[in-house]
Amino acid sequence: MINYPIKKQARKLTNNLDNTINGMKKAKGMTFEDMLNSSNKYYREENIAIIYKKPTPIKILKVKSFKINYQNKHKIVDARFQEKSTTDYNGIYKGKYIDFEAKQTIYKSFNLASNLHSHQLDHLYKIKMHGGIAFLIIYFQKYDRIFLISIGNIKKFLDKVQKSQIPLQYFEEYGIEIEEGINPRIDYLKAVDLIL
Amino acid sequence: MINYPIKKQARKLTNNLDNTINGMKKAKGMTFEDMLNSSNKYYREENIAIIYKKPTPIKILKVKSFKINYQNKHKIVDARFQEKSTTDYNGIYKGKYIDFEAKQTIYKSFNLASNLHSHQLDHLYKIKMHGGIAFLIIYFQKYDRIFLISIGNIKKFLDKVQKSQIPLQYFEEYGIEIEEGINPRIDYLKAVDLIL
Repeated sequence: MINYPIKKQARKLTNNLDNTINGMKKAKGMTFEDMLNSSNKYYREENIAIIYKKPTPIKILKVKSFKINYQNKHKIVDARFQEKSTTDYNGIYKGKYIDFEAKQTIYKSFNLASNLHSHQLDHLYKIKMHGGIAFLIIYFQKYDRIFLISIGNIKKFLDKVQKSQIPLQYFEEYGIEIEEGINPRIDYLKAVDLIL
Repeated sequence: MINYPIKKQARKLTNNLDNTINGMKKAKGMTFEDMLNSSNKYYREENIAIIYKKPTPIKILKVKSFKINYQNKHKIVDARFQEKSTTDYNGIYKGKYIDFEAKQTIYKSFNLASNLHSHQLDHLYKIKMHGGIAFLIIYFQKYDRIFLISIGNIKKFLDKVQKSQIPLQYFEEYGIEIEEGINPRIDYLKAVDLIL
């Protein structure tokens, strides 16, 4: 009979631990996006570049409208997430069109196929063809390292290796490492300068 | 007693007429956006430009997750519309960053203040400052005329007249009229070529 409370406590502890780990993972995950968003905010405020994250594409199915203090309010009560047709970030830097996707991984390699849709890669190739600057920013969580890699070097890898698993070493060789800073948190435009 | 059916009939006719007009307005309204979207699709398919409409910004408050055939599905059950921080359309054309907002009006003038937020105008000014191509496309519904006007000429009007009501004549003088076509439906890049 004594076992029960202990088991319960142990289960509770395990649950708490799980939640903490998940919470940390999530916080880390949010932080990467937050860090990019705050960097973009810095770039805009300092008039260095105008780059925004695009809103998540959503298909709205049902909206309820009502009035509060004589004002029309709308509440979306049914909607679904839609597949992104392009990338997350775009804008202008030094007069050039810029377009990129940011991803993070817990592994020592980046799996292109499980992180990006083929039409997203196609989109980035096309941007390059049209004279824009297209790249990926990859955050290797476990190693706390961030790399920018041009879409040209991604294509080079795929053409040569024909695998979607890109090892960290490839980023070390063909990417540009971005150091974490204070403001901007992720000064990725410094890396962009090197691929312009 | 004979009056009633006639009144009823008249009311029904009026209602039908109202519905028809509203339907036409709506169809016309949808058509303008649809026409722009189909033009952008044409530009992309013909490899002329890569321009997309940004998704509507939405703040998601509650998501319900469930399984269908062992697949995770997500349904947004509470969300609100958010104010746009930028414009509706952006992309790349002839290596240049392009950014614009499209609006329609039933009047013989275009009211800037009631159609665009000041931060949207600021955004377009900044794009121009950074070397991008920034403009508005205005559809005058009643007159069935479409104009592209550069943000520079919008600024010129505001600086001189200091009113937010821009008459159709100003568009005739400083804008570029876009003829409706078959494919693309609104060949606005022809007008962009004139302000490059």
